[in-house]
This record gives sequence, C-alpha cells and structure tokens, in this order.
Amino acid sequence: MSEAIDLSHHLSLLARSRKASPLKDILAYLHYPGMVSLAGGLPHPALFPFANIDVEVYNPGSDLSSLVSSDTTHISVPKVNTEGGVSLAVALQYADVSGMRALLKYAREFTQLVCSPAYKNWDVLINCGNTDGWTKAVGLLCEPGDYILVEEYTFSSAQYLWIPMGCKGAPIKMDAEGLRADHLDEVLTTWDTTHPGVKKPHVLYATPTGQNPTGTLMPDKRKQEVYDVCVKHDIIIVEDDPYYFLQLAPYVLNAPASTPTAYSQSAHLASLEKTFLNIDVQGRVIRLDSFSKTVAPGSRIGWFTANPLFTERLLRASEVTTQTPSGWSQGIIIRLLDEWKLGGFLQWLHGLAAEYQKRRDWMCDGLAASFDVQPSTHDASLTAYLKGTQTRLFTFVPPRAGMFVWLKVFLHENKQYQEMKGKLEEPELDYEKMLWQDMADAKVLLSSGNFFLPWEGKEKMDREENVIFFRLSYSMTSKEAMQAAVQRMADVFAGAWS
Amino acid sequence: MSEAIDLSHHLSLLARSRKASPLKDILAYLHYPGMVSLAGGLPHPALFPFANIDVEVYNPGSDLSSLVSSDTTHISVPKVNTEGGVSLAVALQYADVSGMRALLKYAREFTQLVCSPAYKNWDVLINCGNTDGWTKAVGLLCEPGDYILVEEYTFSSAQYLWIPMGCKGAPIKMDAEGLRADHLDEVLTTWDTTHPGVKKPHVLYATPTGQNPTGTLMPDKRKQEVYDVCVKHDIIIVEDDPYYFLQLAPYVLNAPASTPTAYSQSAHLASLEKTFLNIDVQGRVIRLDSFSKTVAPGSRIGWFTANPLFTERLLRASEVTTQTPSGWSQGIIIRLLDEWKLGGFLQWLHGLAAEYQKRRDWMCDGLAASFDVQPSTHDASLTAYLKGTQTRLFTFVPPRAGMFVWLKVFLHENKQYQEMKGKLEEPELDYEKMLWQDMADAKVLLSSGNFFLPWEGKEKMDREENVIFFRLSYSMTSKEAMQAAVQRMADVFAGAWS
Repeated sequence: MSEAIDLSHHLSLLARSRKASPLKDILAYLHYPGMVSLAGGLPHPALFPFANIDVEVYNPGSDLSSLVSSDTTHISVPKVNTEGGVSLAVALQYADVSGMRALLKYAREFTQLVCSPAYKNWDVLINCGNTDGWTKAVGLLCEPGDYILVEEYTFSSAQYLWIPMGCKGAPIKMDAEGLRADHLDEVLTTWDTTHPGVKKPHVLYATPTGQNPTGTLMPDKRKQEVYDVCVKHDIIIVEDDPYYFLQLAPYVLNAPASTPTAYSQSAHLASLEKTFLNIDVQGRVIRLDSFSKTVAPGSRIGWFTANPLFTERLLRASEVTTQTPSGWSQGIIIRLLDEWKLGGFLQWLHGLAAEYQKRRDWMCDGLAASFDVQPSTHDASLTAYLKGTQTRLFTFVPPRAGMFVWLKVFLHENKQYQEMKGKLEEPELDYEKMLWQDMADAKVLLSSGNFFLPWEGKEKMDREENVIFFRLSYSMTSKEAMQAAVQRMADVFAGAWS
Repeated sequence: MSEAIDLSHHLSLLARSRKASPLKDILAYLHYPGMVSLAGGLPHPALFPFANIDVEVYNPGSDLSSLVSSDTTHISVPKVNTEGGVSLAVALQYADVSGMRALLKYAREFTQLVCSPAYKNWDVLINCGNTDGWTKAVGLLCEPGDYILVEEYTFSSAQYLWIPMGCKGAPIKMDAEGLRADHLDEVLTTWDTTHPGVKKPHVLYATPTGQNPTGTLMPDKRKQEVYDVCVKHDIIIVEDDPYYFLQLAPYVLNAPASTPTAYSQSAHLASLEKTFLNIDVQGRVIRLDSFSKTVAPGSRIGWFTANPLFTERLLRASEVTTQTPSGWSQGIIIRLLDEWKLGGFLQWLHGLAAEYQKRRDWMCDGLAASFDVQPSTHDASLTAYLKGTQTRLFTFVPPRAGMFVWLKVFLHENKQYQEMKGKLEEPELDYEKMLWQDMADAKVLLSSGNFFLPWEGKEKMDREENVIFFRLSYSMTSKEAMQAAVQRMADVFAGAWS
C-alpha cells in the first residue's frame, strides 16, 4: 500500500491561497509547564451557563416501530470531566477546527473498518454535514465557470451551490447500476471536440449509494470501472455517500415478509457494496460521510476522508468560514458512540436499514397493488401499466438503497402531451408540471423530475422526448398513507391517460 | 420611520446569481388537509436515537466565581412535544434554514428592544456564529480583489477569509474611541487619486464594541459620524459585535472595589453605547450578533440583522452551504432563553459584564503594580514606565468593553531595536518577534501585534517606526496568574531595556 499521489494541481486558486492563522502558532507553547497565556480570546468556561446535560438515548437494538422507544439508556456530559472524557467546559469552548479529538478518532476507526482506504496516508476532518462538505470540496477544487461531472439525474441542492458560480454540469448517463463508466470515458475522451476551447472537467460528483433521485446502488464492479476511468483522465471523485448504510436487499415482487435473523457484524459488513475509498489506491477520492441519515440531520455533522493535502486545505477553509461544528452536536454524538461502541453503532445501522427496507417494500408493494406491474426480462426494473389495461405508464427500479423511488413516466399514449408537442417549446416540462399539479390536487405530493436535471447552461437543455420523471420518497409516510397516496396516483394516471 | 433604501447594487455577482431551490416551492402544499407527501427526503424522527434531553442550566443571577454554579434549574426537550414547544423530533430534523421559529422570534424581539433599528423593514436570519456571518456577508457583497475598509488594527481571522480571495484591506486610523470618521472620509474622498483605476471600497468591517485587538468602545457620537460618512460614500457597514454586552465602566486607577447595586433592566440598557443599527435609517448595516460570548462559543449560533433584500440573499447562500445551525444548539438555546425570559437574559448579560469588568480590573491593577503607570492629560490612556525609572515602555487604554488590552510599546529607548534599525528590512516586526519569544521563555504568552495589521498586499506594509504592539487577554486567567504574568512581563522589559 502506497501513499497518495501528488494531486496538488487540482487545487483551486482560492484553496492554494489560504494560509494558516498565525494565532495557531501560539498553540504549541500553550502546554509548557508553568506557562500563563494572555494570548487567547476565549471566554472562561465558568461563564457558560450550563452545569450538565443528560440525554436519554436508544439502545442499538431498539424497536423502531414507535416514535419514542422505551429501550433507552442515559448518557451525560458534565461541565467538568476530571476523567478526561467529554466535558461541557471543553465541548462548548472554541476548539480545534478539525473536530473533537474523540470524534476524529472514532471517524478514523470507523473509516478504517468500513472503507479500508487503499492508500496509506488518508486523513479525516469533521465538517458540518455533507452540504457543508460539498461546499468545501467545490471551494477546494473548482474555479468559477468549471464544468463538473454529475450523474444524469443529480441531487438538485448540490448543483444550486455551483450554478451561481457560473459552473455547469456535464451529465453522465446512468443505468440501473448508477452512472456508466463507458459514458464517463466517452464524455472525457471526446471533450476537446465536443467542447472546443472549454476546460476539461476534473471533478466528478457522485452519490453511489441510494442515489438521489434514482435510488440506484452502484456495485463494486461498476465502482472499479468508474475509478479506472477517473485515473485515466485524472478526475477527483467526490463520493457523497449519506445513504451508505441504508443498503437494502433486492426487492422481490409479492414476496412473503422475511423473518429477521440474529445480527452478525461480519455478515453485515460483508453484505455491503464497497465504497470508492476501498479501491482508491491514488488518494483521488474525497468521501463525505454524514450523521444526518444515521443519527439525525439536525446534528449537522459529517466528515471528510481524503488525502492529507486535501484535508489540510479543507481545514484552512473551515477555520475561516464555519469553524468547528456545534459543540453540543459533537459532544452528544461522541458520547452516544462511546456508549454504543463501534459494534453497537453498526448494529444500529443494520436496524435502520431494516426499517428502510420495510418502507421500501411498502412503497413497491403499494405500486404493485395499484398498478399492474411486470418485471423486465433484462434488468431489475419493473414496468407499471394502468390497472387492467395494456397502457404502459412508467418503469422504476426498486431501490437497493436510500429512500427514493424514481419513476420514468412514458407519455407515448398520453393524448394531452401528444397535443402539446410541437406547440410548446418545452412540452415535457410543461406536461410534468400539469401532472404534478393534478397529483397535488388529488392530495399526493411528488418531487418533479425536472428538479433533478443537471444544469447545463441557459441554452435549452436536451430532454428526452415522450418521458417525464417523478421522485417518490418512502422515508416519512406510514404504510396506510403510502398505500392511499399510491392509489391516488393511480387514479390521476387513469384520468390523465383516458 | 421609513423602509430601507435600495442597496441592490452592493450585491456581488455570486449573491445576485443565487436562486431558491425549487424543492422549496413544494412546502406551501405540505399543510393542505389530507395531503400525503412523498416529496421530501426526510428521515423519519422515529429513527432518531434520542428520547429526551435534560440540561441543568444556571439561573440568570448565578454567582460566577466558581467553575460550576449550583444555582441551577433544569430544562428539557422531549422527543415529541404535544404542547407545540421545542421537540427533538423537530429540532433534529432538516429544517427551515432561516432558523427555528422560536429562535427567530426571540432574535427579533431582542433586536427590537436592544437596537431599535431606525428603519421599518429590517429582518433577522440565524447563522452559525459570527465567523459564518462574516463569511456570508463577504460572499454577499464582495468580489475577488475588492478593497475592504477595516480598522487600523483588525481581527486577524476575519481577514484570513478574504486574503485568499485576492482582497486587500484599506485601513482606517483609530483613536481611543475606535475608528476615526474623519480618516474614513479622507480615505474615501481621496480614493481615486490615491488608488487610480482601483475600485472604491464599499464595505466597512467594524467591531465597535471591545474592538479586537484594541479593546476600544465606540461612543454613540462617533458611530453617528462614521455612519454619516458611510451614507455620503454609499458604504455598507458590517457591524461585528460579539462583545456588545461586555461593556465595562471606565477603569479608575487605584480605585477601591465597587459594591454591586441591584439589577435594573432600564438602567442596564441605558448604560450601553448604542449600535450602528440604532441609527441605521437607510438599512445599510449588517449587524452580527452571536451567542459565543454571551452563552458559549461551541453553540456556533448567531444572527444577522439587515434589510430584507440582504437577509433573503443570505438565506439563499445558507441553504446551499451551511444549511441551518445545529438543532441541538438551537433547541437548547431557545429552551434556555424561554426559561430565562428576555429580562433574565439581560440580567445574565449584566452579570457577565461585571465578571469581565472584575477581570479587566485585575489586569489593569496588575499593570499598575508591576510598572509605574501614569494617566494621560488629554485622553483615557495610561503610560507605563519601567518601575522606579523614567523609561517609557508602553501606553494602553484601559478597555471599556470586551476582553483585550492593547499595548503600544515604544522602542525609542531600546538599544537592541535601535541597532537593528537600518540593518534589517522589517526591524519592528523582527524585534516584536524577539520580545515575544523572550516573554514566552519567561512563561508568559502574548499575542503579537503584527497579527492584527491589515493585509494591504505583498508590497512591504508601512509600519510606524519605533513602536510595536502586543494584545493581552484577561478573559481566561485567574487573578494570581494574571499578576504573575504581568510581573514576568515587567522582568522581561527590564532586561530588554537595560
């Protein structure tokens, strides 16, 4: 195993220009015996109006079917901790922007166990969640006006960061296994002829697990193919992977409910598709892990794993922008993880995935009940027909991870759309909006597919004819409400295709 | 009272280019009766592994002389709050990036009471503390390469944000009352002749209360003069005011200890110098308030007060970069403030200021004990001489706010420096470093004055001859350690001036 290769040429001008604050140089002197510091600017912890916090936390194996579990234990953070553990006096003070030492240590151990990065000198850095992580990754790597490689359908909030910078997306086609390595290679190989005089992209934004919006899970083999293309074309991969532990068993149409088996950590870890980090022999992956989907979004905590050149530059950016994430969040999360131990956290994650799998099945079963659903002969997708008819409405791939189902709706047999074609400039967009509104009027709220189309500039974006998209989330709704919502969708489809 | 004037021409290209996420448009439909949403991407709160938190918080009048007060009460945040108050199910969820509604409401009421902005349609927006606030203000207003108006000695971390953007500081001279309005006017009036072809600055970064590093407090009259100059030259004022409530009574040399009087909210508020917001008839102030010095820095929460055009653009930036601050921080702080009520919080702030005043007095008394200290005949400054000699060492203005004493050290009678002059390119900087090291070797750590010089570009920066600076903080050290540290300084001075 070797060290990361030199990737310094990927740094933006801004990232290269950052300097460490000179105030930091003082820190080395602080711990000299007998030293009295008049150098800092810290409020005295005696002036923090808190004496203790006590948090009632779930045990890792808690039953998650009710809103509040009673299978709990208590963790606390005292003002002062003479045993060297987390204290409010430290957690609520200005602090090392890398993150609390205990949390960094945990992130390192966790990453080693789960991702086993394929090079030696990787490092981790705490951030304020993956939105913050992506913001800092873009600041690290991108110049205004750059093209960024993105999936054909991409997480819309991520691009709302770089659109105002004058950046554009270079979309990479996807299939049921995520973004296609062959198309990535084609886009990059032909770049200079398809985009004469335009700087070649050098950053790929990818969400390989439970991709938002498509719900695809990229298998190990595909990851290796994508990685190889990135090596060939010298691309940095930003692996935004908040749903990594929400990997789900394949959906089986009309399957009986499965009985849960006893938890085994080794079986659990072995069941997971690997990460880009696992195969990152060169250090060209910036992985974004988050506690948002595994603990709670309001924690606003995640971490980078990357080569040390990148983490150092990211740290410089954090120092002058966000500083450290909330000390409340860090303190509570590290105490929770301490309490659970690594094994307990993994068991918790396994339980979470089971919960998402149950919900995924509710959704897919609901679709199978309200539509006539047929499996494909050549891939994992299902096709839905208007109940009792041969009218093909949409296909979807039952998600293998995350919280989203992505419907590709066919308009070939939709009269209203066919009448709009040729008369309107963007008939797919307009019809998608109309159908969305019909759904909303029928009391079912979807996410419009056009939200997830990569921004390629003001010129009219190429849209496939005769198709529109909707994203359905199964994370928040009860089984009954989900069934009702899907039936309302079926009724709207029936009306619109009549 | 009128509305803010149109200041849209101050927005940066980036700020003007931001768009609201289309996902936000869906929110309006969410609350229709009977609606089932499959649109969001929220994890179910049943999957947050927390049942309750209980925080032992100080009462507003707590004695702050020990590290942990026993004058406390308990606040809690349950998973579910059927009475509509703060709950973990909401606080730990993805949320409106403006900030929790209760916290926004509090910030509005507090700002109205304390700052009574002088125009009608001001608004507030929660951020992740003033470092984040300043980052977003720079993003809102500044282009790469801009000059930014800063105080003659300025908070170093603030400029480490914009230096990598290729920005430069345009320093405004200061006196014992903070930055000088006449010099601000002069710099701006003569800009086109002093900086031909260079874009005139349009943003002033100012820390009017307990200025870092000088500890000055800008009186109301000076604020009005500065504001008038900003109106004349169309300047946006970013008022970074974390120490606002740490305003201290004037220091009296060798005064007996004062006896505390009963707390009166009206007397307290009347005793405070006003803010730039109080006189902001046009809406050209972006005020940054923070809980870092008033509650705890680790909370990473503050808020903007600004005209609604600015807060809306700042919100767009927050949505795609930091998102909302930690839900733990927001939930705990709003429950604390609920518990205390506005009056209790003000009483707490008054108690904090008393604590800082005590520490300020320890520091100034210590200086008066270890040096021969003489008052000035024309301003509030004190001059320190080597004990028992006529050797003038430094002057300082006993701080009227905040946590810093700023020493202006005279090198006229320092032989070593005088020998370095003419031989070295930057003798002041070099001698400051030497003296800093001598202090560190004597076990007293100071902040070097050069950290606080505004960055004006790579060309050698003009430094005043025969003077260097040190910043001393009195916030963290016990009385005894402070006295010892000041005596060590005196010993180093004695050696260096011998």
